[in-house]
Amino acid sequence: MATTPDELVRTFVETLSAKDLDTALTMVSPDCEYDNVPIGRTHGPDGIRATLAGFFAAAEQLDWVIVRQVASGNLGTGTVLNERDDRLLMGGTWRSLPVTGVFEVRNGLITLWRDYFDRDTLMKAMTP
Amino acid sequence: MATTPDELVRTFVETLSAKDLDTALTMVSPDCEYDNVPIGRTHGPDGIRATLAGFFAAAEQLDWVIVRQVASGNLGTGTVLNERDDRLLMGGTWRSLPVTGVFEVRNGLITLWRDYFDRDTLMKAMTP
Repeated sequence: MATTPDELVRTFVETLSAKDLDTALTMVSPDCEYDNVPIGRTHGPDGIRATLAGFFAAAEQLDWVIVRQVASGNLGTGTVLNERDDRLLMGGTWRSLPVTGVFEVRNGLITLWRDYFDRDTLMKAMTP
Repeated sequence: MATTPDELVRTFVETLSAKDLDTALTMVSPDCEYDNVPIGRTHGPDGIRATLAGFFAAAEQLDWVIVRQVASGNLGTGTVLNERDDRLLMGGTWRSLPVTGVFEVRNGLITLWRDYFDRDTLMKAMTP
């Protein structure tokens, strides 16, 4: 179990990178906001699953690398920002999506996950 | 004078928001990397000035709001990530650019300023 917001978000990102959506969704609150800034937002585990299932199916493999991460607070009330390289393997080629994530933690669960990136860069990365 | 990386970056953002480029550039290192992720990067005070001068001239007013900021380290070696709403007034209308910034601090100066945002959102915000 994570003992800090930093650990919680690192475990969350690792679990997503392993495409283990079931385990990852145990780390978010029922009303968790999931906001892909240039695309749109959804809420809760079902919303996150609906958004990511197709993406996870399209990528042969994921390798989400945390480049920098800074956290404040504790598992009761915490904030985490990270810079990531969300790599994905498609058609046998690794592609790179530079991302920053903003996370709020309340009572041990992630209540906000907001990713900033360039929409065109994502579209190009997703094009076979 | 700033006593922490958190303060240094807050002062830097406030100074830029006031369009005081001369003062802001005293806070960056001679080799500071300035990276607008979906557009490109430049280096040093002259590179930052060349990138921002036209933008600052085009906007009637700026209001860069730090929504969340988390920092680690000290002025010797520090890392700061922030989530901002970089508002700009153009043609009498306030426009919003959601941004995240990644900053590295060394010896009291900013050595890296990397902004993540959606390129199309910036282009739309800059269109009169």
